[in-house]
Amino acid sequence: MAESIELISSQKSFDGWHQRYRHRSEVLGCDMVFAVYLPPQAEPEAGLPVLYWLSGLTCTDENFMQKAGAQRMAAELGLVLVAPDTSPRGPDVPGDPDGAWDFGLGAGFYVNATQEPWARHYRMHDYVVHELPALIEDNFPVSHRRGIAGHSMGGHGALVCALRNPGRYQSLSAFAPISHPSDCPWGQKALGRFLGKDRAAWAEWDACELLAKASERLPILVDQGERDDFLATQLKPEALRQAAEAVGHPLNLRLHPGYDHSYYFIASFIDDHLRHHAQALTAPA
Amino acid sequence: MAESIELISSQKSFDGWHQRYRHRSEVLGCDMVFAVYLPPQAEPEAGLPVLYWLSGLTCTDENFMQKAGAQRMAAELGLVLVAPDTSPRGPDVPGDPDGAWDFGLGAGFYVNATQEPWARHYRMHDYVVHELPALIEDNFPVSHRRGIAGHSMGGHGALVCALRNPGRYQSLSAFAPISHPSDCPWGQKALGRFLGKDRAAWAEWDACELLAKASERLPILVDQGERDDFLATQLKPEALRQAAEAVGHPLNLRLHPGYDHSYYFIASFIDDHLRHHAQALTAPA
Repeated sequence: MAESIELISSQKSFDGWHQRYRHRSEVLGCDMVFAVYLPPQAEPEAGLPVLYWLSGLTCTDENFMQKAGAQRMAAELGLVLVAPDTSPRGPDVPGDPDGAWDFGLGAGFYVNATQEPWARHYRMHDYVVHELPALIEDNFPVSHRRGIAGHSMGGHGALVCALRNPGRYQSLSAFAPISHPSDCPWGQKALGRFLGKDRAAWAEWDACELLAKASERLPILVDQGERDDFLATQLKPEALRQAAEAVGHPLNLRLHPGYDHSYYFIASFIDDHLRHHAQALTAPA
Repeated sequence: MAESIELISSQKSFDGWHQRYRHRSEVLGCDMVFAVYLPPQAEPEAGLPVLYWLSGLTCTDENFMQKAGAQRMAAELGLVLVAPDTSPRGPDVPGDPDGAWDFGLGAGFYVNATQEPWARHYRMHDYVVHELPALIEDNFPVSHRRGIAGHSMGGHGALVCALRNPGRYQSLSAFAPISHPSDCPWGQKALGRFLGKDRAAWAEWDACELLAKASERLPILVDQGERDDFLATQLKPEALRQAAEAVGHPLNLRLHPGYDHSYYFIASFIDDHLRHHAQALTAPA
């Protein structure tokens, strides 16, 4: 039986619809909200491809839909956009013990936690890769062709979701991803808590490590601003470049002088990403 | 001497710059923040035209810049965008006595108040029409060619600023404007407090009344969503249509089925407005 979703709001946008839904997530053990953009082509039986967008630290489903300016091009290309939340939510879900914004609520890092007290709810990888797409494919006029993209923590999420699940996505891109979480403060804090102290477990959730043994060579588009305050300490795109070069993985890493980490940067290049995804997603299977 | 402005932030956007500035407003008697988008053409001496955007109730300089998706087309057209705040701000500035969001702070209605305790600070008309443009024209590579546009309360503001000041603007448009404030609850509350009980004073700040005696016939583009919750009670675009028809004022009022009052609506049609302004602002004087 299809899981049920409850419509929260529906707003017309570029002749399509921006909608928000609430549903019970069995994987996460809590209620979740996601946003979907249905372009004007989303008639019944349309079978449109879907681009999943994973947001960064502190975000919800709303940031991307309000600030990226993606709907105009999605409407032109006939792409469905889906933006999940960035962590489990609710009164039962533990957040950062110190109230920090870089771990826990709004900061699930798209992993499946193995450590207590996180393991019960923090299973964002399985939610994003399996539960949410099943719900989307049951309830909307979409195909099983999927792209995945994200920003910062969500860029890490997109890379890891695709690299861990060959065949599940047909396109992949990221803005300013946390490229090598085993080797930066945000990643070490999150992986250390969610997965424990054994760094061997971290390698399964680190794009640079996963690239080395990937069985699929999905081309990756990455945009990175050169005035991004987190570039050197947290994001480390050069590590991704080296990891890709070592195995000949197709990576188009574009460095943009002057751009920062914000949605003003994302909006400036989102059209290129949407075209990158549409080209792969609408190609013959 | 040119008044001084203090740069708060600068973020690259579509090869131009989104910047926020703080300055002392003599007209309003408080510090104010505004945002400016400088397209890539904004080299020294470029002499670009400026579009002033007036936002709606509860907004600051940020809503339009973050959510309208205007920078892409502004960069293409070479338009400078300026977004002021929606009221005076600060510890000395009185807000709504009942703490409501539809009057006072974030809700200055772009009038010059005559009544106490509002008259000291609430002079948004003079700020928007005179003080701010003087500051912009002193500090940025712009011409004296000006367009004005806005949303909801800011749509009212744009219409009234242009209609009261023939020759000052070369282009005008609005999204879902409060068209006839003398005849709707938001307008009656605001005008009654700012201007007093004499309705004759209100007519000087009501687009429908001003159209009747306008000496300039600047073409107006207005977009209105038909699913806008405020359409019938607060916005009343038909009153604007009738007022324009009565005097033969050129008004292109477009009603859009399905669209609401939000920035999802604005983003869907902002490109048309930017083209409308650019066409007038870059035409031979």
